[in-house]
Amino acid sequence: MRIGKQDQAFTAIATSDATSITVRGHDLCGDLIGKIGFSDYFWLLVIGEKPTEAQRRMLDACLVAIAEHGLVPSVQAARMTLAAGPDAWQGAMAAGLLGMGSVVAGSSEQAGRYLAEIVSRADGGDLEAVAIESLKEHKAARRKVAGLGHPQHSGGDPRADRLLELADELGISGTYIGALRALGQHASRIVERPLPINVSGAIPACMLDAGWPLEALKAVPLLARTAGLSAHLYEESLRSIGFILSHKADLAIEYDGKPAKQQAAE
Amino acid sequence: MRIGKQDQAFTAIATSDATSITVRGHDLCGDLIGKIGFSDYFWLLVIGEKPTEAQRRMLDACLVAIAEHGLVPSVQAARMTLAAGPDAWQGAMAAGLLGMGSVVAGSSEQAGRYLAEIVSRADGGDLEAVAIESLKEHKAARRKVAGLGHPQHSGGDPRADRLLELADELGISGTYIGALRALGQHASRIVERPLPINVSGAIPACMLDAGWPLEALKAVPLLARTAGLSAHLYEESLRSIGFILSHKADLAIEYDGKPAKQQAAE
Amino acid sequence: MRIGKQDQAFTAIATSDATSITVRGHDLCGDLIGKIGFSDYFWLLVIGEKPTEAQRRMLDACLVAIAEHGLVPSVQAARMTLAAGPDAWQGAMAAGLLGMGSVVAGSSEQAGRYLAEIVSRADGGDLEAVAIESLKEHKAARRKVAGLGHPQHSGGDPRADRLLELADELGISGTYIGALRALGQHASRIVERPLPINVSGAIPACMLDAGWPLEALKAVPLLARTAGLSAHLYEESLRSIGFILSHKADLAIEYDGKPAKQQAAE
Amino acid sequence: MRIGKQDQAFTAIATSDATSITVRGHDLCGDLIGKIGFSDYFWLLVIGEKPTEAQRRMLDACLVAIAEHGLVPSVQAARMTLAAGPDAWQGAMAAGLLGMGSVVAGSSEQAGRYLAEIVSRADGGDLEAVAIESLKEHKAARRKVAGLGHPQHSGGDPRADRLLELADELGISGTYIGALRALGQHASRIVERPLPINVSGAIPACMLDAGWPLEALKAVPLLARTAGLSAHLYEESLRSIGFILSHKADLAIEYDGKPAKQQAAE
Repeated sequence: MRIGKQDQAFTAIATSDATSITVRGHDLCGDLIGKIGFSDYFWLLVIGEKPTEAQRRMLDACLVAIAEHGLVPSVQAARMTLAAGPDAWQGAMAAGLLGMGSVVAGSSEQAGRYLAEIVSRADGGDLEAVAIESLKEHKAARRKVAGLGHPQHSGGDPRADRLLELADELGISGTYIGALRALGQHASRIVERPLPINVSGAIPACMLDAGWPLEALKAVPLLARTAGLSAHLYEESLRSIGFILSHKADLAIEYDGKPAKQQAAE
Repeated sequence: MRIGKQDQAFTAIATSDATSITVRGHDLCGDLIGKIGFSDYFWLLVIGEKPTEAQRRMLDACLVAIAEHGLVPSVQAARMTLAAGPDAWQGAMAAGLLGMGSVVAGSSEQAGRYLAEIVSRADGGDLEAVAIESLKEHKAARRKVAGLGHPQHSGGDPRADRLLELADELGISGTYIGALRALGQHASRIVERPLPINVSGAIPACMLDAGWPLEALKAVPLLARTAGLSAHLYEESLRSIGFILSHKADLAIEYDGKPAKQQAAE
Repeated sequence: MRIGKQDQAFTAIATSDATSITVRGHDLCGDLIGKIGFSDYFWLLVIGEKPTEAQRRMLDACLVAIAEHGLVPSVQAARMTLAAGPDAWQGAMAAGLLGMGSVVAGSSEQAGRYLAEIVSRADGGDLEAVAIESLKEHKAARRKVAGLGHPQHSGGDPRADRLLELADELGISGTYIGALRALGQHASRIVERPLPINVSGAIPACMLDAGWPLEALKAVPLLARTAGLSAHLYEESLRSIGFILSHKADLAIEYDGKPAKQQAAE
Repeated sequence: MRIGKQDQAFTAIATSDATSITVRGHDLCGDLIGKIGFSDYFWLLVIGEKPTEAQRRMLDACLVAIAEHGLVPSVQAARMTLAAGPDAWQGAMAAGLLGMGSVVAGSSEQAGRYLAEIVSRADGGDLEAVAIESLKEHKAARRKVAGLGHPQHSGGDPRADRLLELADELGISGTYIGALRALGQHASRIVERPLPINVSGAIPACMLDAGWPLEALKAVPLLARTAGLSAHLYEESLRSIGFILSHKADLAIEYDGKPAKQQAAE
């Protein structure tokens, strides 16, 4: 059965024969292994060209900013999964990454789409006016503003501030960061609660201004968290807390269903 | 319900409060973002200390070597999964990583355990003698030798050769690489078929000699493949081949079950 | 860190102590094991009450209809994953279920939401008029109509026909099936291509009319496919085709990226 | 690239053409939908033949016994995952099933292999003697005995007792249940701690005696838990506790890594 009408049976990423492997137009063994850092290679793999120094430093900073933030839900899910199946790291890693949905770390993607929408509505014109208008719409519709606000860092997400500062230093700041800053400047006043720029807003702004495509944004938090999860899975294998986590969590929840009735024999 | 007797309720990876995030004893925003590359950060996260220049270059080389090798099964699984659910990158990524089991890319871990066993049996003594003995045991038991042989690169896996060469250049080559080379030198003769050192043998040898722990070996191919999968998922979102892959694969398999019988009314 | 303002720390599904387990108000060991079939139990678990005979038969029929359809993409992903990691059935099963996204089998959920929208727009009034209006909107916006059309069964999806017939027999057919039939009756004419009711349209229509909640619709294809995937994973463990599938699929795709350039020494 | 030498390009599960779907030699629409219950269909899919009444009742009882046991780690992982990505049920379900590793619910498979080993060692002879010998070996090697013991139900797992009783009633009890009972009778005395038969021991014993193959054992807990997880994901979508769970769990773990040092400007 053929689903859909996909008719371009091509890939431009890699090919190989018995003696060589070609990746994005480079000989893997002769030109890449030992000669290119992993961040540059990640950029080359996804985009097809090597990054500039500024692009690579921006990417590194975004990956470092989002890789690790302690025992967040997805880390807990991964550690519980490893505790339950210590022989399958790949399963525990997958369970952790599956937690990067629209609400938590995967929110970078949502925020990126929102910034792109602001930029597109401004159409080269007044970003600030569009940002204000959009914030008022969100207030009216009681919708969450993607990329702003943080449950813990309500006074300002220090990771976001650092990333934006770095984007300025690297000469990367452009329209997307402009849009985000316009949102950040007016949000708390319009929505009437503390809405500082968060790291999931700063990352897409910085990456889009660095030239990274919107459709590949989610790769950044996914790669970053794979590094953080690696640390947690290694620690879990040495000093397991997976079942302590689930035990304590279980204690916090009460059963409010019906009690079991003694049932007559059928 | 409490499962197991885990009694050390600690983590040494990260902590945070309203204004700062501490990772492995460093202030994330002040000391890490913008100041440390992603590969160094990965090492810091997992190991707890920053790598030396040689360690980082060895890690980079291993990550680059294993990140991408075309439309391998796990990449196909990921692309089919994205084609079927384009809104859930994390699901497609997870499906791809789940394919890193004991047989394919996850085999680095198996090979690492095997090298550790050789090194431990030699106990500071003659690695070559132990390697020969172990190969004869494998031949007798008709068991696969982890870290040797490749379905496509039977004349020698060029990635492995390059990694070992680099380990020499960086002054990293030690006991584990010694053990692997001893295996590689005698395997084809003893097992009587071409068994060159493969990339899943070279990676654990290089990483273990660089000081990376055996228990965290699987993190290396997992992180690497997350980068390669990112490229494929982005390409899939632009130019989908997921259903072409499954259509062609389906055509290759014939039904040899029973034909449907016309059944009388029940 | 506390995310969100979840303040109801309760579950109504199950509780247990050292000697008994209570599920939905029944003693698991005394009243359920050996006394209730799995389909009834699935309904009890999700809904909180046992189904009527007609509800259970409708559920059984929907599960049977969607459990298995040969080597579809998600089955291929699961079989490739098991071939690559034969020791981790749970990983292969997870990879298979991850393919139940919005486009393929998970489309039952989409279709259910669409039917609920039609029913809500009709608001007790003329379903047919609303269906026609909605189809014209889809035609104008060139949007796919959820629940209609099939890549292989363009003359009519026999599973859908059988399910709707059974719903009539069981006296279950109501507003949702009415909405679906109204769509099916006019779609091919309005959209100007063959758009018979498909199984992903029939399942939500039948289940919603049987009293199953919209928010739990996805559980039906997920449970059903777990059964089908079980058959495939067992077959894969006896007679592996995972790597045949990926080999044939790989052959169908050509590399159209840049060739590797010979690079001068750095 | 072709991995392995898989040379049987067949499947015996299903085939289809434009007008019909054949599953295990039955016409899906004419002979199965509406005419076969889901449990019977699961047996037919996996085994290739419909079960007897006793086989189906044994399967139902095992599925019911293991489907739900409250907020176990895999349920928590699934609920946290849904809270973080409410739009991707399939991801949350996958995260939950990934927790069915060797230690927790997936332990049925381990126990099944152990029972098969006991039966094979007895080779038609004295099961009890072999069981005692094996228990002494486990005691000496301080190894866990698969299928015995429970963290909560140390006085006896009521689910296991009920399943074995039912197997007797259904006339299914045979060699595997005999082996398990022999283990259960002597374990606590030999290993010197309470080791009642648990549900992960009873399930494989009952299923193997009912004629279910060892290699497909894991399908039973996987299918069962998919039903239980469905209930939890539906409840999570109505009344979310995912982030309460992770918040409480987080509070239980202390950071014992290094404090952040104030670093001089670089």
